Amino acid sequence: MPLRLLTAGESHGPQLVAILEGMVAGLPVDVDFVGHELQRRQRGVGAGPRMKIERDTVEFLGGVLENKTTGAPIAIQIRNHDHAKWKGIPIKPMLIPRPGHADLTGALKYGYSDLRPALERASARETALRVAAGAVCKLLLMEFGVQVFGYVASIGDIQADIDSIPMAERSHRAEEHETRCPDQRAAAAMVELVNSAIHQKDTLGGVIEVVATGLPIGLGSHVHADRRLSARLAAAVLGTQAMKGVEFGSAFANTRLFGTQVQDPIGVHEGGNLTRASNHAGGLEGGITNGQPLILRAAMKAIATTLTPQETVNLSTGQPAHTEYERSDFCPVPRAVPILENVVALVLADALLEKLGGDTLAELHVRYKALPTGLVADFRLDGEEHTYWP
Amino acid sequence: MPLRLLTAGESHGPQLVAILEGMVAGLPVDVDFVGHELQRRQRGVGAGPRMKIERDTVEFLGGVLENKTTGAPIAIQIRNHDHAKWKGIPIKPMLIPRPGHADLTGALKYGYSDLRPALERASARETALRVAAGAVCKLLLMEFGVQVFGYVASIGDIQADIDSIPMAERSHRAEEHETRCPDQRAAAAMVELVNSAIHQKDTLGGVIEVVATGLPIGLGSHVHADRRLSARLAAAVLGTQAMKGVEFGSAFANTRLFGTQVQDPIGVHEGGNLTRASNHAGGLEGGITNGQPLILRAAMKAIATTLTPQETVNLSTGQPAHTEYERSDFCPVPRAVPILENVVALVLADALLEKLGGDTLAELHVRYKALPTGLVADFRLDGEEHTYWP
Amino acid sequence: MPLRLLTAGESHGPQLVAILEGMVAGLPVDVDFVGHELQRRQRGVGAGPRMKIERDTVEFLGGVLENKTTGAPIAIQIRNHDHAKWKGIPIKPMLIPRPGHADLTGALKYGYSDLRPALERASARETALRVAAGAVCKLLLMEFGVQVFGYVASIGDIQADIDSIPMAERSHRAEEHETRCPDQRAAAAMVELVNSAIHQKDTLGGVIEVVATGLPIGLGSHVHADRRLSARLAAAVLGTQAMKGVEFGSAFANTRLFGTQVQDPIGVHEGGNLTRASNHAGGLEGGITNGQPLILRAAMKAIATTLTPQETVNLSTGQPAHTEYERSDFCPVPRAVPILENVVALVLADALLEKLGGDTLAELHVRYKALPTGLVADFRLDGEEHTYWP
Amino acid sequence: MPLRLLTAGESHGPQLVAILEGMVAGLPVDVDFVGHELQRRQRGVGAGPRMKIERDTVEFLGGVLENKTTGAPIAIQIRNHDHAKWKGIPIKPMLIPRPGHADLTGALKYGYSDLRPALERASARETALRVAAGAVCKLLLMEFGVQVFGYVASIGDIQADIDSIPMAERSHRAEEHETRCPDQRAAAAMVELVNSAIHQKDTLGGVIEVVATGLPIGLGSHVHADRRLSARLAAAVLGTQAMKGVEFGSAFANTRLFGTQVQDPIGVHEGGNLTRASNHAGGLEGGITNGQPLILRAAMKAIATTLTPQETVNLSTGQPAHTEYERSDFCPVPRAVPILENVVALVLADALLEKLGGDTLAELHVRYKALPTGLVADFRLDGEEHTYWP
Repeated sequence: MPLRLLTAGESHGPQLVAILEGMVAGLPVDVDFVGHELQRRQRGVGAGPRMKIERDTVEFLGGVLENKTTGAPIAIQIRNHDHAKWKGIPIKPMLIPRPGHADLTGALKYGYSDLRPALERASARETALRVAAGAVCKLLLMEFGVQVFGYVASIGDIQADIDSIPMAERSHRAEEHETRCPDQRAAAAMVELVNSAIHQKDTLGGVIEVVATGLPIGLGSHVHADRRLSARLAAAVLGTQAMKGVEFGSAFANTRLFGTQVQDPIGVHEGGNLTRASNHAGGLEGGITNGQPLILRAAMKAIATTLTPQETVNLSTGQPAHTEYERSDFCPVPRAVPILENVVALVLADALLEKLGGDTLAELHVRYKALPTGLVADFRLDGEEHTYWP
Repeated sequence: MPLRLLTAGESHGPQLVAILEGMVAGLPVDVDFVGHELQRRQRGVGAGPRMKIERDTVEFLGGVLENKTTGAPIAIQIRNHDHAKWKGIPIKPMLIPRPGHADLTGALKYGYSDLRPALERASARETALRVAAGAVCKLLLMEFGVQVFGYVASIGDIQADIDSIPMAERSHRAEEHETRCPDQRAAAAMVELVNSAIHQKDTLGGVIEVVATGLPIGLGSHVHADRRLSARLAAAVLGTQAMKGVEFGSAFANTRLFGTQVQDPIGVHEGGNLTRASNHAGGLEGGITNGQPLILRAAMKAIATTLTPQETVNLSTGQPAHTEYERSDFCPVPRAVPILENVVALVLADALLEKLGGDTLAELHVRYKALPTGLVADFRLDGEEHTYWP
Repeated sequence: MPLRLLTAGESHGPQLVAILEGMVAGLPVDVDFVGHELQRRQRGVGAGPRMKIERDTVEFLGGVLENKTTGAPIAIQIRNHDHAKWKGIPIKPMLIPRPGHADLTGALKYGYSDLRPALERASARETALRVAAGAVCKLLLMEFGVQVFGYVASIGDIQADIDSIPMAERSHRAEEHETRCPDQRAAAAMVELVNSAIHQKDTLGGVIEVVATGLPIGLGSHVHADRRLSARLAAAVLGTQAMKGVEFGSAFANTRLFGTQVQDPIGVHEGGNLTRASNHAGGLEGGITNGQPLILRAAMKAIATTLTPQETVNLSTGQPAHTEYERSDFCPVPRAVPILENVVALVLADALLEKLGGDTLAELHVRYKALPTGLVADFRLDGEEHTYWP
Repeated sequence: MPLRLLTAGESHGPQLVAILEGMVAGLPVDVDFVGHELQRRQRGVGAGPRMKIERDTVEFLGGVLENKTTGAPIAIQIRNHDHAKWKGIPIKPMLIPRPGHADLTGALKYGYSDLRPALERASARETALRVAAGAVCKLLLMEFGVQVFGYVASIGDIQADIDSIPMAERSHRAEEHETRCPDQRAAAAMVELVNSAIHQKDTLGGVIEVVATGLPIGLGSHVHADRRLSARLAAAVLGTQAMKGVEFGSAFANTRLFGTQVQDPIGVHEGGNLTRASNHAGGLEGGITNGQPLILRAAMKAIATTLTPQETVNLSTGQPAHTEYERSDFCPVPRAVPILENVVALVLADALLEKLGGDTLAELHVRYKALPTGLVADFRLDGEEHTYWP
């Protein structure tokens, strides 16, 4: 896989740093676009108070000259504006783990003398880096007409009616609303639910859909388990904080149907253009993009940090205790939309670079134009008998 | 990650071959156990006729001497008993792709002159190798008291009542029934449903749960996205043929609940043993095992190959056509249980080897005994203030 | 890196098996060519008696249909003809490690109860697989006019005069002689030296040169340490049994010269074709191919197994002992020529696939033709000032 | 392999950034030690003028809290003090490639409109990051009694007499002299030679030896080519700027000797301690550490940038031209000693972490103490016949 990404930095450290290695040279890096993606990540109903103060900006410390990639590793920095408040300050020990976080597991695994180091790194603050790196990947994808967008499908038990909204309008409508839900009626109900959860000192999760349109046929492969695009996307989504499930199309719901009900019949237009009557497969067949929109749905759990104290144990005394509140969101779902979009963009850019090879954007453009597009004429079937094992 | 696995071979080729690299030396390889796992994969209601003839057996061609691993790469071979029927035989061209398979995407991507080579490699026949390699991993895990098992939670719209069956009885009950569903009432309904689907020339999918008990705390990590055990497991599951979704615990259902409802309160027993009142997290917090059973659920789509012809296109003529039947299962869900168990075992063994390091089973045993087990006393909290950024 | 290779099997096991993953579809696999490479590996002055009986042949068990690659993992099998002599036979324990082998280190690392399992896997028998897999890579490279060949530069203290033999004649002349040395005078002296070593119950090593001509400019990269082609080639060479050193061009000798003496001045022909007056760099600048022949030299140690007993220890008794003879070569250098050629071909094919991307040989050909060839006109210099950090 | 390292940043950019992922928690990070290693890299006879102004210091931006590693990715930053001179400044185009650099190959590969971006990343400035990351690895290794040190064996045709200096004194003596050559007589001649080269507007290369003492037996493995420690070390050395060759022990010289002359006889002390009479193997047998000092020798080419102009071509005009001088060293060999030491330390730490597994330094210490040390009693030989293939 051509791209490598490492991220580093703690939630309250001086800055976050990522290195993205393997990007081609010559890609214009629109810093405003990257900043815009970062700011999308900081807005949404149910966000905690930290979001209101911060305005993340990105600095490219390497791999970008004159606002163009050079092919060298791209170093990305995002400063933590409230680090000053933590520098040189003795911090009260954290001894009481919150269920649902890495507090307990991380501290045990790494032998910490305080739970805080686990939380510092497990925090979703780190996702800012993946948004920034993913935004560079979005810029690459947009060069080839690929759009990656997402929206909220449900929060708590409020389920949006997504199917009735045309694909082309979903992103636009979602971005207009602080819930990032494109269904206005559901969006209004979600706001109410979030406010009621805040009032009850509780939190909410939900389901996010991410869509990629304009992908060429043939990304990913069936020839090996770890080459399946489904596997690579699933790892990216479930490597993201608070994500606990993923499905392509409505896979879980589809299991309730018969085989004849969930396939996507293949049709043909004049000119030999292949069409599909539906997209139950979510754009992947055999782990390979099939020219339909890629659609994945992610289950995001409700934020584990609640103002309502939860039962737990003081790991210093061994006595029962209640959780103490750490600053957090009430409903992270709207803010997670751009996170997942960019996490998905990282995988798709990787798959596209693998398909196209090469070292410069110019090279990629030429090769992209020569890709088969799924016309009948793109197939090389010879209609002959074959003796595969002579 | 210590383990590497490559698999090769086509569905009707002479044999399937895998190489598993990175296993420690000294692990007894119970060939009968591996064979038993392979045979579990060949049995189940809704299996196609091929399953009735075949009896897969495994041969270890390398890395195993005197039935013990040596630390060298393990070569695994499974012969295809019906290869003789294909060798030297001209095979009719396949020009009509079945929706839902790699027929179309694979042939376009790799430029085949016939659709069959895509199907030959995309076939779930390949999973026999992952079962065999995973069975070796199960043997490793069992050395440390880890059990990996699975069962059918639903087929079509028949949903088993799993929660009311004690964890310790699920595997046993599931294996007693041809559906691999531990809920007898549901199992009976599933048989009926499968038979009716066969009668209707249709197919079915379902949901499988895989559980791992006895895992030490601390496998996986929150420190980097691709080290989260959730990411690694999700990739393995969604790298498996016909799998379209995965969740830890009941993640999708949990999104409908409030934060206070879906955490797993931490309690403490005498002796400082930490306990959990529930397991909504499915055994992972921060992408790390937390000492609770690991539970994942996979959505398996209905088999795309149906006796009822589906609309598609003849890629040679460009004219509308109907799918032609290729030998296949009617309901692959029961047979997929051992597949997913072993796919999961591969990841868990990898994570355990990463945690324990070393080159021999004896070394691992000593190290394993020294692992923290999650007693309060295992934590090293010092109760002091820390100045993290001096 | 697109290609992955795993090899498995023991020296006296039933067969050797490799899987090569990542090769494009549509490459004709000339089985005779692969067999020819295997047989080159079995011939040469100083070979042990085993070589005279064996005639390795290759079977492709997967990834090749109708003698063409399909893009699926390629499974390669080579049978061990003398396995029958070992099967079911109790084998005398080996307790006395030979210095210079993995006997001692391997047995300690893996906790063996006998030294033999170390030797079984450490044996150069395994290189047959890398020759076979490398031969498939040579076939790919030849599609693009790349030739990889090698020859013996020295055996013991007999040094060939390579510089006076034109590059185009070296391979041909080397293959004509059982020493694989293209300098006839040196070759004759080498035969004499090898015979005298055999007579003295001793063994010999030497230096091998591997050359690749016709490589496009731009394989490898300076942007990251592990992307330098020098690093990747060095790992491949020093991952090969008995290889203890590697240099590009005459790097060690060049360290004795001044900077002005060891560069390769750049000239220009009519038409803007860039030329080099020399090739001290061995074809790599900044870890990237520069259009000159790639030349690497490998130091192969004298075979550690000598008929003359060596001082060692019986690890069972802890008493001093002498090595006991295991069947072996006297001078492995001529036979190692095809081994290193193919090990190098694996790396070069990997780098070429990385440069060209794609899934089919046809795609690669189109992309290859569009590569810059190093004409002045291929550079995009704009002659302007740049403000790299605005 | 547990450790991952990515580096980023250009020679004249604002800063250099690296991320080292996979280090255990609890390792004290002595920032002064890391700074000292960086400063060793900036001193030595033959250094260019830039070295005299700069004083590199390191900042840990992530993965280190209270001066201890946390197990999270370690972010390392080194500022470029002269960046201010470049920021916002239009820079004259560079159109004339210097032979021996990535100027030409890098610009062609990445389609640059100016040669400078190639040079910015190919510059050995990047090695400062590998020194800093490697210094963290040295700190880990020192916890287990492993010392990694290096010295200059030759500059130009001045060859030190290393063999007559006891291993324990080499590092100390080398550090006392600006040449980093432990042989005083040779050191004096080297200074003279370097001064004469400067006077002649020429440059020099040489040979560096890196030694690691105190390594446990059993790092690396013979079971797969890419697990051989020789392969991993060779890749690291030849992934380093200006390195063109590597050998273990005196591998190239050893090829001139007979097999009986170059082995390292195994002896035994009272108590069953195994000894070696020599170390021709350079500490590796079968690609595995054997308890002897690891010794590798690297050939570093003379700096390609010479004050004496060299023949080349103006790539803008296509006309013959002469190189223009870029600020550079005259003899980089003494400064490259700490670079190679730390590059080697990265590989050795990786291999040690692989051997020991685990997540905390405390865990590693316990496991380390249980490692076999190479006493006869550490072997588990049972002296029985084995039937390996039943």
